Parts: sequence; structure tokens; C-alpha cells
Amino acid sequence: MKNRKPLILVTNDDGITAPGITALVEVMKTLGDVVVVAPDKAQSGMGHAITINSTLRIHKVKIYGVKSEYSCTGTPVDCVKFAVNKIVDRKPDLCVSGINHGTNMSINVIYSGTMSAAVEGAIENIPSVGFSLSDYTIDADFTASKKIVKMIAQKVLKNGLPKGVCLNVNIPKLKSELIKGIKVCRQAKANWVEQFDERHDPGGHPYYWLTGKFENFYKGQNDTDVWALENNYVSVVPTQFDMTAHKAIKEIQKWKL
Amino acid sequence: MKNRKPLILVTNDDGITAPGITALVEVMKTLGDVVVVAPDKAQSGMGHAITINSTLRIHKVKIYGVKSEYSCTGTPVDCVKFAVNKIVDRKPDLCVSGINHGTNMSINVIYSGTMSAAVEGAIENIPSVGFSLSDYTIDADFTASKKIVKMIAQKVLKNGLPKGVCLNVNIPKLKSELIKGIKVCRQAKANWVEQFDERHDPGGHPYYWLTGKFENFYKGQNDTDVWALENNYVSVVPTQFDMTAHKAIKEIQKWKL
Repeated sequence: MKNRKPLILVTNDDGITAPGITALVEVMKTLGDVVVVAPDKAQSGMGHAITINSTLRIHKVKIYGVKSEYSCTGTPVDCVKFAVNKIVDRKPDLCVSGINHGTNMSINVIYSGTMSAAVEGAIENIPSVGFSLSDYTIDADFTASKKIVKMIAQKVLKNGLPKGVCLNVNIPKLKSELIKGIKVCRQAKANWVEQFDERHDPGGHPYYWLTGKFENFYKGQNDTDVWALENNYVSVVPTQFDMTAHKAIKEIQKWKL
Repeated sequence: MKNRKPLILVTNDDGITAPGITALVEVMKTLGDVVVVAPDKAQSGMGHAITINSTLRIHKVKIYGVKSEYSCTGTPVDCVKFAVNKIVDRKPDLCVSGINHGTNMSINVIYSGTMSAAVEGAIENIPSVGFSLSDYTIDADFTASKKIVKMIAQKVLKNGLPKGVCLNVNIPKLKSELIKGIKVCRQAKANWVEQFDERHDPGGHPYYWLTGKFENFYKGQNDTDVWALENNYVSVVPTQFDMTAHKAIKEIQKWKL
């Protein structure tokens, strides 16, 4: 069994036909046997949502000519759960999500369907990586991204990842030769300043679009993902699902609850 | 302005009419001015999802007779964002979410709409707490919970919380006198073992319900929320939105990417 090809699970949150997942599948086909289970529509901003109050549908598709490929009516996290439990016959050696059209740096890791799929992979004890490119458009150029994706995926297949940890990789919108390198860094302390765009329907009743502006409140720090992207580096943030604020435990214990 | 009442934002994920939020509002009315913005339907398992691909509707309601109250078509996180940006005239002194019908211990923190609302409160820099009772039923008895909720809310109003940290409080399904106390602890390393319940529609096509069994893989550890609940304690886990696996940064840096 030693020489069998790696089994690679691919998903995303932009939907199974997005150019970003097409690029990701193309790279993964050069590295192993590929299984695709991805949402049948855009699922951006779904965070770690799972579908428990309604049912899921899964459809076999023929888009990429890989080992097996399915579209799913659920969230990115549903896709990973379904793939692991119903599609594959052994635990995948790698789970990759993306390539997202748009970055998932800083606090966006928590809203991102792309990253939540990678986090779910880590929960399932699979080495997992979420990839995002700093270009929201349908015409995004994934040429440079594909080189970086391949190199990082090879490293993860070779080295594995620490237990409970996945990677959040963000790639600047630049040609390969202009990318300065790769920085392993931490999630920046930045925020969304939300705005709700109020409109009125033909009956005069208000409805809202959630929108906003991303603000980096800590510009000076060169060990963050926001800094890396702004300075033409690829950012790699090791990301965990243990949300315990370990340092705060002693402080709260002093309250004598 | 010193003596003005605290402003308290209340939300949940079981929907604005759930008995759990009714209990929570009753307690908060004794502590300050209450604003309720909560989902108009059950939003369990929505994690940190936000609504960006469709619109939001907000409706003024008169259920609890508080300062202001609205139901929202969105997720628990949408509710917090909307409340902070469109409803309140100053930053709330406290944001509470729940009382959830069912626990949100261990890894469930990441799938939970209840806790994601509290985490969003922390992102907005508001001292925030998610409360959950270990009873899924509509007839859950919140008598003991209300005493615990009040005590913890008072402590948070008095002490604040460390920056970037909210609390995940889980309460056992017991009468007050049988609850042994309160443990400040960490998120247990437990997991869901998923099962997809396959059924067939009248046309013979398969559909699935996501279901599963919660398994605690680390039974022996008495510093976790799962241990606390199993031993009749209330668990309080300080929870953060920095998902960086700080300890893994050096390890990944050794890869020389």
C-alpha cells in the first residue's frame, strides 16, 4: 500500500463551477487521486454553519474527470462531513478548500466558508489547507496561485500538520515574479466596520444588505497576515479549532464564581 | 451619566419566541435596559454565518415589553451586527445569547449560533456571554439557569472581560440544589461522529439528514467543560476569536516555504 497515490478531498465555498476550484482541482490532479464534494451554489460567509434543520441533496457530476465528484446543496462544512462519511473509502491524506475568490485574512477566517471547510478537515483529523486569492472577480488569474498551492500542498503531504491545526493561505493578486515570498504569521487584529445598506421594496418596506469596510487597527505589526498581503507576501496562518482563551482561565477563576 | 442603567443586548439561535430567550430577557430586565434582536426562526447550527448573498428583513415586535425588540430574518451573528449598527444609540454594556435549548460544550462552540452571537459581541468589543442549558425540549425548566445567568451577568457587568474574550456557559439539567458549583475550564477535545440518515423522496431520489453521536475522546480530564457538565457543575469556558495556532507558527516556519 506504500506507493499508492495520496487521496485528496477538494471543496470550496464559491460553488463547484467557480474558476478557483477549477484551478485547485487541476493542481491536485498532479498530486494524487482527487475527490470533489463542493456546494452547488455560492456559500460565501457561511462560516462553520451545518445543515441540521433541513435536508441535504447530493448529485454526482462530471466536470473535472476525477476519481469522484459531487455537488451538494449544503454548506462547505456539510461537504467535508458528507465526503468523509459517505464518499471516500479511507481517510483523505489531504483536504484543500478554495481557491477562494477574495482573501480570508484576519477575522475573516471566522466568517469564511472556505476556511471553515479546512477547519472541519482538521476536526476530522485530516491535514487541511484553505487557499484564497486577493481577487474577487470571475476573471481572476490563478497562474501564480497554482504554483504556490502546489508547493504548499506537497509540503503538507510530506510533513503532515500538528494535530488540531490547519493552514489559512492567502495569496496576493500579483504575477509570480512580483510575489516576495511566503510568511508564516498570525491572524491580524483587524475588523469589519459594518454598514447596512437600507433599501425599500416596491411596497415601501425596508430591507437591508449587510456590507462594510475592512479596517486593520494594528498597521505596524509585520508578523500578521494583513501585513504580509499588503507587502506582497503570501500569508500562511496556522489555524486551530480550540477556541479556549487559555490565558483568561486564571483571570476568570479569580472571580470565585 | 454614571448612574444610568446598563444597556443589555439579548439574542439567541432558537428564535425570538423560544422559552430560553424568554427566561434570559426576564433576568436581564432586572439588571438594565434591554434590547432584543433575535432570529425569527430557529437558526441552530448556523455557526458564524452571515447573510451576504441575500437581503435581511427586520420587524419591530412587542413580545417582552423591553426598551426595543426586533425579529430578524438573518443569523444570530447578523442580529448582533444589526443591533450594534442600526438599533442601539451607544455600545451595549453586555451582550447575552441564549439560553440555548441544549448544550454547546466542547467543539460545539464552533457550530453553535448561540455562541457565535457571543463571539460576534466580543469582536464588537462588548462583554458577551452565551448561555446553554442541557435540555433540548420546549418544556425545559430554566429556574436554576436563571439564578446562574443573573449571577454571571452581574459579575461580567462589574468586572468586564479580557479583550477579545467572551464566555461560553453551559448549565446541567438539574435543580439548583443539585448543581455542585461553577468550574472555569477549557473546551474539551471531543467530537461528533457523524451519520447521514439516508431517505428517499416519493420519486425514489435520496436525500439526507445530518445526524451523529457526540463522543468525548478524553474522558479523564477534569479541567474540561464536558467533565464539568458530566459531574453536575456549570462550565464556564473563556472563548476567543483569535484562531491562530500560535504554538504551530515556529514549527511551520521550519518548513522554509
